[in-house]
Amino acid sequence: MRNNTIWKWTAVAAGAMLFFGTQAWAAKQAPKLSEKEFKRGIQIYFDRCAGCHGTLRKGATGPKITQNKMLKKSLEKLEEVIYHGTKAGMPGWGRTGEMTQKDTELMAKFIQHKAPIPPEYGLRAMLKTHKVIVQPNDRPASPQHKRDIDNMFGVILRDVGQGAVIDGDTHEVIEKVKTGFAVHIFRASASSRYFYTVGRDGKITMIDLFEKKPKVVAEVKVCADARSIDVSKYNGPKGNFTDKYAIVGCYWPPQLVIVDGMTLKPIKIISTRSHTYDTNEYHPEPRVAAIVASHADSEWVVAIKETGLIWLVDYSDLKNLKITEIEAERFLHDGGWDVSKRYFIVAANMRDTIVVVDTKLKKLAAKFETGVKPHPGRGANWIDPEYGKVSATTHLGEGKITVFGSDPEGRPDIAWKVVREGKTAGPGLFLKTHPNSENIWMDSTLAKEEGANKKICVYKKANFGKEPYKCWKATDHGKIVHFEYNKAGTEVWASVWDNNGELIIYDDKTLKEIKRIKGLHTPTGKWNVYNTVNDIF
Amino acid sequence: MRNNTIWKWTAVAAGAMLFFGTQAWAAKQAPKLSEKEFKRGIQIYFDRCAGCHGTLRKGATGPKITQNKMLKKSLEKLEEVIYHGTKAGMPGWGRTGEMTQKDTELMAKFIQHKAPIPPEYGLRAMLKTHKVIVQPNDRPASPQHKRDIDNMFGVILRDVGQGAVIDGDTHEVIEKVKTGFAVHIFRASASSRYFYTVGRDGKITMIDLFEKKPKVVAEVKVCADARSIDVSKYNGPKGNFTDKYAIVGCYWPPQLVIVDGMTLKPIKIISTRSHTYDTNEYHPEPRVAAIVASHADSEWVVAIKETGLIWLVDYSDLKNLKITEIEAERFLHDGGWDVSKRYFIVAANMRDTIVVVDTKLKKLAAKFETGVKPHPGRGANWIDPEYGKVSATTHLGEGKITVFGSDPEGRPDIAWKVVREGKTAGPGLFLKTHPNSENIWMDSTLAKEEGANKKICVYKKANFGKEPYKCWKATDHGKIVHFEYNKAGTEVWASVWDNNGELIIYDDKTLKEIKRIKGLHTPTGKWNVYNTVNDIF
Repeated sequence: MRNNTIWKWTAVAAGAMLFFGTQAWAAKQAPKLSEKEFKRGIQIYFDRCAGCHGTLRKGATGPKITQNKMLKKSLEKLEEVIYHGTKAGMPGWGRTGEMTQKDTELMAKFIQHKAPIPPEYGLRAMLKTHKVIVQPNDRPASPQHKRDIDNMFGVILRDVGQGAVIDGDTHEVIEKVKTGFAVHIFRASASSRYFYTVGRDGKITMIDLFEKKPKVVAEVKVCADARSIDVSKYNGPKGNFTDKYAIVGCYWPPQLVIVDGMTLKPIKIISTRSHTYDTNEYHPEPRVAAIVASHADSEWVVAIKETGLIWLVDYSDLKNLKITEIEAERFLHDGGWDVSKRYFIVAANMRDTIVVVDTKLKKLAAKFETGVKPHPGRGANWIDPEYGKVSATTHLGEGKITVFGSDPEGRPDIAWKVVREGKTAGPGLFLKTHPNSENIWMDSTLAKEEGANKKICVYKKANFGKEPYKCWKATDHGKIVHFEYNKAGTEVWASVWDNNGELIIYDDKTLKEIKRIKGLHTPTGKWNVYNTVNDIF
Repeated sequence: MRNNTIWKWTAVAAGAMLFFGTQAWAAKQAPKLSEKEFKRGIQIYFDRCAGCHGTLRKGATGPKITQNKMLKKSLEKLEEVIYHGTKAGMPGWGRTGEMTQKDTELMAKFIQHKAPIPPEYGLRAMLKTHKVIVQPNDRPASPQHKRDIDNMFGVILRDVGQGAVIDGDTHEVIEKVKTGFAVHIFRASASSRYFYTVGRDGKITMIDLFEKKPKVVAEVKVCADARSIDVSKYNGPKGNFTDKYAIVGCYWPPQLVIVDGMTLKPIKIISTRSHTYDTNEYHPEPRVAAIVASHADSEWVVAIKETGLIWLVDYSDLKNLKITEIEAERFLHDGGWDVSKRYFIVAANMRDTIVVVDTKLKKLAAKFETGVKPHPGRGANWIDPEYGKVSATTHLGEGKITVFGSDPEGRPDIAWKVVREGKTAGPGLFLKTHPNSENIWMDSTLAKEEGANKKICVYKKANFGKEPYKCWKATDHGKIVHFEYNKAGTEVWASVWDNNGELIIYDDKTLKEIKRIKGLHTPTGKWNVYNTVNDIF
């Protein structure tokens, strides 16, 4: 699948080469690259740069790096930034060992060329990649094993394009299945039976948990670059939509793709290209950051990064499709629910802002600043002894947890206002809690300070001070990232993100280590079936 | 305004020149054009070709004429088609005198070049063109004249970029005002007080009929190319939206623009770029064909040509904007209401199909074939002695009127089914009737047969046969196009489309000529205030 994408980009690149090789004004300035070098530049750009700077280089989490801007800088300066990174948050790709000196030099030249526009990706191309490995009628009618599906975990093995399904009771790795490349999330189906994943290469994989061992039963590639997937959950007066559809949000092409929930057959594509909510200028690449299924109606909540719009997409009638386009804030990223599951809470990270959408009234509820680049993941909700129902976020840009009121009915005085702040071990990606737990766990994956990204910190709900209750070094290799609770809320699973990675399982009450599951290549995110289906966090 | 557009395209063209002049594969094949010639090609393409073939040449009413396709044809063949036209409906631009031999040769070469992509057009650019000539507070509180505004007519003087406002009682031309270039429609405001027009150059003009003489009180340019405009009409539980907003549908950029109804200040832009409803492939240029204000809700009904979608755009909350995207049929064009004003009836002309949307249930009601390229204009509704409530369309591609049942409640057996067909004097643009009339009037503007485009034909509602009740030659110069009734439904106004044009006013009962209003340059469409506000046809 991945090769397929690169092949198509290469066709564009070949045209671009010709263009750059012969066009007068570009030939004067853009440094020469061979076709082979240009193709390598496309691949490295896709893997390392596009996520923050955008495929068309218009900027998002990272700044705009169009040809015109890059031609104003010397190759030496560009190489330095690529190799060593910046204080503003750009990783030093040479320093971290992800790029060689030679690749750094190549990329400095590459970004002085015009960004090649990758091709569109429509229904005809998708259908060619669609495979139903086990037809719905040929799938077992009941689980072919005695395990508790609700307590299974889906774990991303990021850099090997695999997912591990692990028994949450026995801690056994039941099966590793082939997925897309660099998967971002697993979503359990509304019925709990299936896991759906989507790779950065836009490949959806559907895993049946009824089989003796978890098995891929369908796959399809629906984007060139993707991040998010969810399923339809509504069951009510309009009909039963449990697992009827899945939806993928693409980064490129900028579009939503609705597929059949049982076979992954693509049904409908909707472009997200439109205008920025505030300045009303056209954006050619509004990427779909996060998607969650509404609990209030037959809708998906879709956060679109560059336009700053949150779309409510009603899946009850695809031929007469309703979309509510909510003006929110630019550079939307990740989010989840408050405890009532009425309010969708999402970060607009480059605006240091948290946005709240009321999915019942279908409008913006609030937006407020929290800190440098908030990153709540799916979020964390608990009862604060002083402030009642609160939610929280950690930050990509500083070592801070910010707690805010999230109960507009019970505590309108502090709803969507910051009530507490605390320090963490450094800039991080995720925090996590569970209704049965007294703790909030957080990583500091992005911390640059020696050893800080190997730490875990925990705050106590009952006694939330300026400093964590406890921080400790959890690994001597790799980085700590992401947490998930088991179904009962008694165990916390953390990933050691490393080629020779592992999962550390803690007793949530004692904060003591119970077990390490070793032999996992680059484990990152993980999802417990029950907690994912029921949005418990 | 118009120069402004061309200037911007030229900047693009200059880049294109360089591109075409030096790029290897193009240099081999595309014939050389000087910068001056290329600029002239852009202008002629915009004026004559873009309407049917699309700005990006992807095709719509006319076929796709991309560079690759055109390079396969000889210049001689292309010149022949441009000069003499085709049987499929392409006008012979040389034959009609619109293009010289030299321009024909230029255009054959021009279309062998890659289509230059015109620039986007966003809020910042629009605001620079925005002028409030008379502020709302400075406008008169009541009419400054004794005329009946309800019986005024707005008449397009197409090729001089003007509109005439004519007193329907006295037949006096009260005033000619400057408008955009080649205006397509006048829309009376919901309050009857204003006329809004939009030119092909995307310039909106707002004309106040309370002034002593009709006066332009605001203007703004919101597209590079446009066709349609309407206002908000809803007054009910959600609020009073009478004249609160206007909306323009652009051809280029492919977008909707919502402006303040009192000042024309642009508020919000929504891109129409998305995927074809049937094949789900991305279309870069889905043009907005027709817009009407719903009578059922606070919505505009927007027909989008290339994707074949009909959008219901809810204007009651622009910050949390609801759109219902109805899968209809491709190449939507013009349409209007059934007599109950619940059903929007619109042509998908290149699919020989009429599409019906139920604006109450907000979904597709039906689609059915009528003939070669149906073109109903706003439509025609009457009571047929045998079939009850019916509607009708004429056709661009054949001399035929098709009558169909349009009463799904009263006559479900024949609803949205063809019940009658009749001949006309040839392919035409418009038909028209009025509830107080016994007649249906139709033109044959596109007829090629000698003299046929100078004819008017009339059918009798009570006795609808295979042939018209009467046809006659109405002019010895120009072409007959478009009809409008006066408020009482006793007079029919027809245009003689000519540089030395005129309006012919008929007594609807006797079909006798009452008067000719002369000295009008290229009069085409015309709208009676009362009939337009109340959608009477």
